[in-house]
Amino acid sequence: MFNAIGIIGLGLIGGSLGLAIKHNKLSKVVIGFDTNKENLNDALKLELIDIGANSYKSFSICDFVIVSVPPSQTAKVILDLFDVLRENTIIIDVASVKEPIIADIKSSIPKGISYIPTHPIAGTENFGPKSAFRQLFDDKYFIITPINEITFAEKKVEEFAKKINMKVKYMDAKRHDEVFAYVSHLPHIIAYNLVNLIWNKKENDEAYSFVGGGFKDFTRIAKSNEKMWSDIFFLNKKNILSAINDYIENLLVLKTIIENNDKEKLLETLKNIRLFKEHLDG
Amino acid sequence: MFNAIGIIGLGLIGGSLGLAIKHNKLSKVVIGFDTNKENLNDALKLELIDIGANSYKSFSICDFVIVSVPPSQTAKVILDLFDVLRENTIIIDVASVKEPIIADIKSSIPKGISYIPTHPIAGTENFGPKSAFRQLFDDKYFIITPINEITFAEKKVEEFAKKINMKVKYMDAKRHDEVFAYVSHLPHIIAYNLVNLIWNKKENDEAYSFVGGGFKDFTRIAKSNEKMWSDIFFLNKKNILSAINDYIENLLVLKTIIENNDKEKLLETLKNIRLFKEHLDG
Repeated sequence: MFNAIGIIGLGLIGGSLGLAIKHNKLSKVVIGFDTNKENLNDALKLELIDIGANSYKSFSICDFVIVSVPPSQTAKVILDLFDVLRENTIIIDVASVKEPIIADIKSSIPKGISYIPTHPIAGTENFGPKSAFRQLFDDKYFIITPINEITFAEKKVEEFAKKINMKVKYMDAKRHDEVFAYVSHLPHIIAYNLVNLIWNKKENDEAYSFVGGGFKDFTRIAKSNEKMWSDIFFLNKKNILSAINDYIENLLVLKTIIENNDKEKLLETLKNIRLFKEHLDG
Repeated sequence: MFNAIGIIGLGLIGGSLGLAIKHNKLSKVVIGFDTNKENLNDALKLELIDIGANSYKSFSICDFVIVSVPPSQTAKVILDLFDVLRENTIIIDVASVKEPIIADIKSSIPKGISYIPTHPIAGTENFGPKSAFRQLFDDKYFIITPINEITFAEKKVEEFAKKINMKVKYMDAKRHDEVFAYVSHLPHIIAYNLVNLIWNKKENDEAYSFVGGGFKDFTRIAKSNEKMWSDIFFLNKKNILSAINDYIENLLVLKTIIENNDKEKLLETLKNIRLFKEHLDG
């Protein structure tokens, strides 16, 4: 499908993409780079990539480049790559926030280079090259937020995503950032906040170590990469702040129902929530 | 260990207790009762119990009785049972809230009957006799909140819990209700609230169906039995309202950190949360 794919950033996503590309034979060669030398060595040892690069210069031989670095560094890395990439290269990023990254890049895209912003909705609470695995993307959504109209390059990226078993959806970048503030970024914030609250209580009182099953569900994502998530929270700040406000407003409604002993209303609300969840499960 | 164990309420907990008792041969016979005739029939068919009872009268032959009905009905059921139980019977309840139930019962305990309030920290999001399974209690905590001093009866209940593979802890009832407002009841409320929020958004905008991995973690417990949880929220109202207030207060601190672009502070906070989670995992 490609002659040489380059991957900048060899963590969970970049590393797993390397494995999926190699397994599906989507490129003759996969070239990887990471500013962290240990990550680069691990990626070579684990055969997530074929070749380790010392600098961006090596990516001049690629026809497809994937940038999977922390969101706050994404735009900078892409702008630097623009200086070395040859004509007709397609470059994608995989950050969970799209609009601010596009805004930083949009006016600097060289003629002949196609930059396609994407967001593969896949991940675990683990990070680093050692957490990479080839099936990470199976049956997950791959969202493309095109800068302008959909061209040959977007179609090629769509084909790539389908070949690693993903389902492709196109979405406006602004809308993407609004929606994901609610369905992904907010859940992480409220999980982090719950763990933090229990931690504060437990510091002074060992009894709070009796965490129940409900608590356990939250802690999985509260183990996520703090660098990535703090980047996301700041980059998508405006949308996240409204999501938090909305969340608190809704919580206060629930609190008032409990305060007022409105048993019928609470039972009905919880039942509707359960039915929605059962609908989501299909 | 016992001649005849009675179980009132044959849902997930009552039914699983039946299985665990039979498997470990802790009683010659297990007598079950449920106001829902379908549940009673299912419990007999699934062999969660040996005998189905038509009324509380049958429990006069028991030396150990377990009440596992919704929390709001627990005190009433126990008070009714006091009229039929014979002397030297031990009766326990397994509700997730202890203080208000104890308050309703305390002054009415007949001489010769031992009432022991307990809370097995075990459960799933499923409910009803069909969701019962014998291993539900393995390695989980069994909390006893004795009304007065620890006597022979508490020791007998402790022995029972250990025989179904549980770890026993004693705790003051008031303290239990405070702690579990934070570590169990609050997680359910914030999960229910998130699902509710996304549902409200999704009603007007299909894009919100792109729920990510973070969201999925929360939805498991938002599928729980609404009758039981609304009971818990009202019975433990005072503690739950302070937990909600504390939670919002903490969330506003996190919101301010994001609002102020305080990158170092956010990174440090998220890192501490991750380290605490890793400590919890052991």
